[in-house]
Amino acid sequence: MIKPINESVVNVFKEKKTFLIMAHQKPDGDAVGSAVALGLGLKQIGKNVDYWMDSKIEKRISFFPEVSNFNQNQYAGQYDAYVFVDCSSYDYAYKPNTSMDNGIKIVIDHHLTNIGYGDVNHIENTSACAELIYRLLVQLGASHENQIAEAVYTGISTDTGGFQYSSMTSDTFDILKELYAYPNRFALLADRLHRTKSYNETKLYGKAIDALTLYADNRLAWIVMDHKTIERFGGMVNVGDDVANIGIGIEGSVIAATVKEHRHGEYKISLRSAEPYPVDVSHIADLHGGGGHQRAAGFNYSGNLDDLKKELVDFLLEKKAEIDACE
Amino acid sequence: MIKPINESVVNVFKEKKTFLIMAHQKPDGDAVGSAVALGLGLKQIGKNVDYWMDSKIEKRISFFPEVSNFNQNQYAGQYDAYVFVDCSSYDYAYKPNTSMDNGIKIVIDHHLTNIGYGDVNHIENTSACAELIYRLLVQLGASHENQIAEAVYTGISTDTGGFQYSSMTSDTFDILKELYAYPNRFALLADRLHRTKSYNETKLYGKAIDALTLYADNRLAWIVMDHKTIERFGGMVNVGDDVANIGIGIEGSVIAATVKEHRHGEYKISLRSAEPYPVDVSHIADLHGGGGHQRAAGFNYSGNLDDLKKELVDFLLEKKAEIDACE
Repeated sequence: MIKPINESVVNVFKEKKTFLIMAHQKPDGDAVGSAVALGLGLKQIGKNVDYWMDSKIEKRISFFPEVSNFNQNQYAGQYDAYVFVDCSSYDYAYKPNTSMDNGIKIVIDHHLTNIGYGDVNHIENTSACAELIYRLLVQLGASHENQIAEAVYTGISTDTGGFQYSSMTSDTFDILKELYAYPNRFALLADRLHRTKSYNETKLYGKAIDALTLYADNRLAWIVMDHKTIERFGGMVNVGDDVANIGIGIEGSVIAATVKEHRHGEYKISLRSAEPYPVDVSHIADLHGGGGHQRAAGFNYSGNLDDLKKELVDFLLEKKAEIDACE
Repeated sequence: MIKPINESVVNVFKEKKTFLIMAHQKPDGDAVGSAVALGLGLKQIGKNVDYWMDSKIEKRISFFPEVSNFNQNQYAGQYDAYVFVDCSSYDYAYKPNTSMDNGIKIVIDHHLTNIGYGDVNHIENTSACAELIYRLLVQLGASHENQIAEAVYTGISTDTGGFQYSSMTSDTFDILKELYAYPNRFALLADRLHRTKSYNETKLYGKAIDALTLYADNRLAWIVMDHKTIERFGGMVNVGDDVANIGIGIEGSVIAATVKEHRHGEYKISLRSAEPYPVDVSHIADLHGGGGHQRAAGFNYSGNLDDLKKELVDFLLEKKAEIDACE
């Protein structure tokens, strides 16, 4: 049984005619997937839809035909409703400068930090915003359609590392079950979303593995990517996350630190901590003016790399008893 | 709704008291997961269970406490029923030399090539044999238990590349939905099954990427791993599949060939073909006395590697029109 969405939210979609759909800056798979699914579903039930979307979309998620309808402003100035999907705060939204006072603001999001900046809000801790969009479309009576199914699949798959994270719930599988009830090419889509890389991206990933060194009794995985190597293979944008995770994939490693030299002597540091160790890398990032959360954090750095390495080794030594207790 | 299993099969499990569970040689995650889930489920409803299992089990899937009960022969000679799980043929089964004539043979398998060599058989094309075991346990009234849930999860996850392959169906998600309805540590288990590698395995994977070269207008991805490198990092057993798949992860590549020099001048060749291209690499493997299927095949080779490379390039040239039509 697909869980329902707040009735007040559903009713606004039923009552209003013309919608502007927005998402967060630098939209990821869940932002684009949620927007596309919602837009197509609304059009199906006779609504007018425009999208206001940041054009910086990764190649792997820009394959939806509906993306060509982004930023067409067909109904500019005539919106009854402004919809924010997968957007944890109003500031973080990619939105027009013009006033939105002529319409109602609707917020649909799965980030519990969202304060509910809309006139109506549905905020619920699901694996992906696309889950909420799917449930909304079921209630609106939008029929199954391939591009909607692929958009929902994309949102859930990209936000859960391909259905692997602990954010997956029975409700998520209820939705996947319905999506898979129709002929699909999800296996091909999964390859495109998670496994396909360019030759250069693959080579850069290999260079990162070559650079991997372990310290602190193999508890610290340390990777330094110098500026020249990064440039030679076309930059780390599309492999940054994969590279950051190499270290915590090593048996017994607790913290993975990736040092990217983005300019000579200037570094971006990515930290990851491995399950199930009780180590919060955001504490370290905070000390250096960065941020993040327990398992993933980052900061800018321009000091001596040996000092930074020593800091991480010392941090692990301090936590040694707690870490050993997890074995 | 969880699909039922053949009533005749369910009844044999209800009627009989003492079972010997077997699977195929070199048991993988689905073989071990299916055996463990079935064994624990049967014990729960008061049955006697022994396991006859090949001890060559990969480390990543040997974590089940129940594995310590493999090959204990508590009820040797007293079996009412011999159960073969995930075992496509009688020859391929890892089984005792003694006669099985005193009991009934039960075959539960998801390989459609299985001729049904049991006295009762349930053969159905599911993502994993563990799906069938779960459905059987539901019908037998075995209650939910953590180790059973993790065994079923392991079977499905390892046979589907972590829920990614086209073998996933709505029925599979129905089962996952039930498994996730209870507190679980599946995210951690997924890491262990799919992402955790040793330092040496990771380094060897990096060496494989370093060795990657593209030919035939980037349609052929070619990796040669020499004997010395393979030995230096402790062998390819645990990364062989990951390495074989590197090439088809490259945008535009159609065939990935991995050459492993297992002795000086003697090679094991793994071939992969990428979705959605209409290329069947088992044809090439057949010509060299090997085998496999459309997307994955292999053979032994001791000839000149340049000749082999040319053969693959020529094969791709012949297929050029069909391949280009897929773009």
